[in-house]
Amino acid sequence: MTKCVVIGGNGFIGSHLVDELVARGHEVTAFDRFSAARKVYTSEGVRQVIGNFENHADVREALAGQDHVFHFLSTTTPATSENDPTLDVRTNVAASVEMLEIAVQEGISKVSFASTGGAMYGKQPAGMITEDALPLPVSPYAIGKLSIEGYLRYFQAKHGLDSVSFRISNPYGPRQGPNKKQGVIPIFLQSIAEGRPVTVYGDGSMVRDYMYVGDVARQVAQTVGRPTTHPVYNIGSGVGHSVSDIVEVMREITGKNIDINHRPVPATFIDRVVLDVSRYDDEFGSGGLVTLREGVALTWSDTLQTSAASSGNRSPLSD
Amino acid sequence: MTKCVVIGGNGFIGSHLVDELVARGHEVTAFDRFSAARKVYTSEGVRQVIGNFENHADVREALAGQDHVFHFLSTTTPATSENDPTLDVRTNVAASVEMLEIAVQEGISKVSFASTGGAMYGKQPAGMITEDALPLPVSPYAIGKLSIEGYLRYFQAKHGLDSVSFRISNPYGPRQGPNKKQGVIPIFLQSIAEGRPVTVYGDGSMVRDYMYVGDVARQVAQTVGRPTTHPVYNIGSGVGHSVSDIVEVMREITGKNIDINHRPVPATFIDRVVLDVSRYDDEFGSGGLVTLREGVALTWSDTLQTSAASSGNRSPLSD
Repeated sequence: MTKCVVIGGNGFIGSHLVDELVARGHEVTAFDRFSAARKVYTSEGVRQVIGNFENHADVREALAGQDHVFHFLSTTTPATSENDPTLDVRTNVAASVEMLEIAVQEGISKVSFASTGGAMYGKQPAGMITEDALPLPVSPYAIGKLSIEGYLRYFQAKHGLDSVSFRISNPYGPRQGPNKKQGVIPIFLQSIAEGRPVTVYGDGSMVRDYMYVGDVARQVAQTVGRPTTHPVYNIGSGVGHSVSDIVEVMREITGKNIDINHRPVPATFIDRVVLDVSRYDDEFGSGGLVTLREGVALTWSDTLQTSAASSGNRSPLSD
Repeated sequence: MTKCVVIGGNGFIGSHLVDELVARGHEVTAFDRFSAARKVYTSEGVRQVIGNFENHADVREALAGQDHVFHFLSTTTPATSENDPTLDVRTNVAASVEMLEIAVQEGISKVSFASTGGAMYGKQPAGMITEDALPLPVSPYAIGKLSIEGYLRYFQAKHGLDSVSFRISNPYGPRQGPNKKQGVIPIFLQSIAEGRPVTVYGDGSMVRDYMYVGDVARQVAQTVGRPTTHPVYNIGSGVGHSVSDIVEVMREITGKNIDINHRPVPATFIDRVVLDVSRYDDEFGSGGLVTLREGVALTWSDTLQTSAASSGNRSPLSD
């Protein structure tokens, strides 16, 4: 049993991680603004700390007495950081460094950081991307993540603070708010549920490594209490799917016609990202992953429930 | 003739670059706080813009109507950023991104950035370090430099702003203020001039790639008006010298006894950094470098002149 605090514990990946850690018998604190006004993780017995990541006192309250910090919070998304290129350095990176200073003071034994595998590597030669590939981020979001990885290395060298970064590919699944402009799978399924066309940038040939969020949470959680021999691990499915593949799977799962709006490809888009995940698998085992078809079905089911629930909530006023 | 603005034009490398660009017939603007209260570059006909790098209006005044921006300013040093780990992201990185936004608005054709080769790579396998080595910075100073390189890539992809980063090894020479805690060669020579012992961290076996600042300025300046085919170039001598080597050369050049104080090695120190400079040399030619012995002699001569001048200045009050 480890005392785990998940920063961003009510977020998309963070909430799944909270549930997974509780299921494994750990004592879990969820730190979040809880701006959703309700908890989205489903476990009982979670200590809840409501706070702002940029407020030292809030972060200190969450970390006091804990063993293992999971830093799964971002004040930005790829879309918001694109609109305001210094937002990441001014908020995310600075607050993360201050959190690491508090972690040293509070005697935290390990920090696990949710980095990005989808945006970190940028334009690479074709093939599977290993952790030894030269990071070539072309978005402020990923530049900020790379900085935080650097600060983890610095705090390890300077203060002996143990840490590990997980470069997570394109996670998808329930609780990935389609309004946050992140995650093509929930966004598309929401559009399909509402009978709207989906928007595809370019010709649909862009390839990504999609991973079901439950698998991400499980792979991160099963490293608790075990040594990590590398500073960075790719976390992904190791399989590439094009946007056209995704749409085809959605046609089968939903049984609906899907209209497509094509838009020009933004200048900073990358054609192909598929992660080589053998470093993680060799050390911890993959444990068998949810297939794209299964994962899309689970997300579709969640989309329908969420839509039904929110239209149910709305009905007294809007009907 | 290119209209060149050197940001940090009154600094250590920047002032040598101003002189080199003027000598090559370019029209040069020096932007700096000029906190030294006088200009340290020696050329005539330089347009001087006194301003703060964190002030948009000042930066815009310097960049208006220019062709080529040389970003050779840092609000921090390795030592100051070590004492305040978010100083780089809050000041240097944020202000650099804002400068790039102004560069786009002002139609600048190219940005050349003074990155670090000495601190960027961190702990590498023994041997010569190429630009393809995985950057493993362990200091906030170098993490900030790596971020700025990332933003240059982002502005190139997003706005078509051409740029190049020079990862400069350990530059040394005249005008490297020994009070700034950066540059072992001027610091040692200053101590020798004042008859004080020099401070060596560890046993003196730490190896660095020292390059005479005039050579750095020449190599940077000769890329003006020529295409750069890579985003990043190492700039160094390609030769490693230990601290003990340096002390030995200083004994010969100065003819003085040198007392050594040994101190423990800080946790974030790296044993060995020697840059592979073949990428630059293949494309632009090295042009023949000042040897360590010649460079130490030039710096010693400058140290003696500066000491004489400053004790001359002080004499009416202190004598």
